[in-house]
Amino acid sequence: MVIEEIQGGVCAPKGFKANGIHCGIRKNKAKRDFALIVSEVRAAAAGVYTSNLVKGAPVVVTKKNLGDGYAQAIICNSGNANTCNANGIEIAEGMCALVENAGDISAKDVIVASTGVIGQQLDLSPMRYHMQELWSGLGDNSNLAAEAIMTTDTVRKSVAVSFELGGKVCKIGAIAKGVGMVCPNMATNLIFLTSDVAITSEMLQKALSEDVKTSFNMVSVDGDQSTNDTCCIMANGLAGNDVISDEGTDFKAFCTALNYCTVKLSRMLAKDGEGATKLIECRVTGADNECTAKTVAKSVIKSSLVKAAMFGADANWGRVLCAIGYAGVEVDVNAIDVSFSSKKGDLPVCKSGFGIDFSEEKAKEILSEDEVIININLNSGSSNATAWGCDLTYDYVKINGDYRT
Amino acid sequence: MVIEEIQGGVCAPKGFKANGIHCGIRKNKAKRDFALIVSEVRAAAAGVYTSNLVKGAPVVVTKKNLGDGYAQAIICNSGNANTCNANGIEIAEGMCALVENAGDISAKDVIVASTGVIGQQLDLSPMRYHMQELWSGLGDNSNLAAEAIMTTDTVRKSVAVSFELGGKVCKIGAIAKGVGMVCPNMATNLIFLTSDVAITSEMLQKALSEDVKTSFNMVSVDGDQSTNDTCCIMANGLAGNDVISDEGTDFKAFCTALNYCTVKLSRMLAKDGEGATKLIECRVTGADNECTAKTVAKSVIKSSLVKAAMFGADANWGRVLCAIGYAGVEVDVNAIDVSFSSKKGDLPVCKSGFGIDFSEEKAKEILSEDEVIININLNSGSSNATAWGCDLTYDYVKINGDYRT
Repeated sequence: MVIEEIQGGVCAPKGFKANGIHCGIRKNKAKRDFALIVSEVRAAAAGVYTSNLVKGAPVVVTKKNLGDGYAQAIICNSGNANTCNANGIEIAEGMCALVENAGDISAKDVIVASTGVIGQQLDLSPMRYHMQELWSGLGDNSNLAAEAIMTTDTVRKSVAVSFELGGKVCKIGAIAKGVGMVCPNMATNLIFLTSDVAITSEMLQKALSEDVKTSFNMVSVDGDQSTNDTCCIMANGLAGNDVISDEGTDFKAFCTALNYCTVKLSRMLAKDGEGATKLIECRVTGADNECTAKTVAKSVIKSSLVKAAMFGADANWGRVLCAIGYAGVEVDVNAIDVSFSSKKGDLPVCKSGFGIDFSEEKAKEILSEDEVIININLNSGSSNATAWGCDLTYDYVKINGDYRT
Repeated sequence: MVIEEIQGGVCAPKGFKANGIHCGIRKNKAKRDFALIVSEVRAAAAGVYTSNLVKGAPVVVTKKNLGDGYAQAIICNSGNANTCNANGIEIAEGMCALVENAGDISAKDVIVASTGVIGQQLDLSPMRYHMQELWSGLGDNSNLAAEAIMTTDTVRKSVAVSFELGGKVCKIGAIAKGVGMVCPNMATNLIFLTSDVAITSEMLQKALSEDVKTSFNMVSVDGDQSTNDTCCIMANGLAGNDVISDEGTDFKAFCTALNYCTVKLSRMLAKDGEGATKLIECRVTGADNECTAKTVAKSVIKSSLVKAAMFGADANWGRVLCAIGYAGVEVDVNAIDVSFSSKKGDLPVCKSGFGIDFSEEKAKEILSEDEVIININLNSGSSNATAWGCDLTYDYVKINGDYRT
């Protein structure tokens, strides 16, 4: 199967338009804060959400609206999470109603999301006032929508791919935002995917729920799981392929293309973690089972001490072993091999649980790259897992020491 | 029951002497790195240890030596954790043998501990060379021992109390070191306690194991659980009280005095967490059960985002709610009240899960103190718990970005 990366983000698939503007939720007029993605026809839709007990009002409303498996638009603001507010549901439903008023779309077919500070009242008026402007600017503007959902993100996150199903060209596109409060479980911050593939709602949900287990759920920036994590996909069928309604070849091909997009976004989310200077990938091999592999990979990627060592390009592998040891799964400590690698090479630092001599100079060179891999071989089975994270830096502390003001 | 705080640390109880010197494990000659605590008679002894699967060699040897419930000395070095070294057990046993050679104490009655970098060979020779000096300097030198076990600690941690059992004056003393890789479970970094109380080994172990659940196990600096966590106590019986051999009044009194010491040390450990500028205490009340109260308190105290907000004196209570929400226990989010307090006053910020208006100026004043309390009332039961942690600062990143060099 050939997957080709293409331009266009969420507007790459047929029948999708997007826009992003500044409506005034943020004080900085240069920062877009209001986004819209629309399909020209009603689309099969699926979502996965935060498992935090504190859920943003938009999460509650989106889950309700996706109850029938269909949607036609995504509306999102940044600068305010609309969470822990007494009138949160009313405001989130009000945002859906804005879409219904602006176009020929039922409010019940709208996915709504908000991201930003928790516990501050979100005022609907700036959005109401600028809704017509947002709607009339809909076009091939995936980048504007991607900018509008950013908070402390330093780069836009977007991907799109093209592939074939039964001779028909199909596409998937996506935008995402991440940065802080990133430690998803069954979903991650805000990820909006579009596709022109024809697929039933049931199979779409199945594909998405399965996908996040090896993509977004394997990302951690700071171990804090957001209240507003939402990952939604709309598939409008305009590619004209035979409708995917079971787990056959086409479903597998769609899942492969989807995973290409989500893994790429996962890496982007990790690399642009708040304050991050580098992407850390933890590859665990030789585990007894997949659960052990994943748990070990996430424990290492989440360790503050490992993250700080990576910031300092310090080959402190003892901290890697320590994080494996408290991961909470059974492993044979005396079988573990560890190496650090990057495009500057690969350096074994621990063999069978004990340290081995290595060149500190070479270690520094490898760990000074902006993408670093921690390789862990548990040498006791054949299961693997990969997790993505970032280093812990002065800037993470700076950004989060005074985020609200 | 009257508990009086006294001077003397581990040397306050009758029959204990201590010393701490520089033997050369550390390059900095001004930093003591070798400590010894000795009881003039064999003492009942108990320990709790790290639950990390990666265990330092000294932990393994100490557990074995305490198998019979007795000990007479504690030997400890800083600067090297003697962990993940092929010859680690041999070195740890070698340290015990040094004590046997220096004095009339069996190597099997020695508690051994090491703290510092993981995975670097520990050389016995500097300790062997300086053992006589360490031994001959034994005296009322608890502070020297406390200094010798410090790594990146900025202050000595020591406490001692006096109380009465059946008309006899009894004492407990302790020294501790903490700072980074602090997130104990059934033990914490290095805590050495001494007492002249007469108590059986069984009851001493029972008291200690129960105690840590509400003291050291409720401390977190960075969520990383050390490989070398060891908390040991020796009780030599020289106070002359009736031997405590069951859970009667005297046992309860001893536990109360012990908990006074351990909670005080827990606060010291948290406040002197690596890079910390302040102590954060999280008090959870109104929980359905103790497990929920503890889990919520620890989730909040461990959140990087809450810790960074506290560093910035930012009353970002949404992050507190978020950390409660992902703690993994059932709570009614819409019943939660949150307030911040310090000696500058108390400020409610969240009522029944929703934000309430508060003075940002007052919040800044309260959160700028060096001891801050996050009060959480779950309003659904009568169980309580308290956890201790610290803020996340530039200095934590600095210290851990290049710890080994």
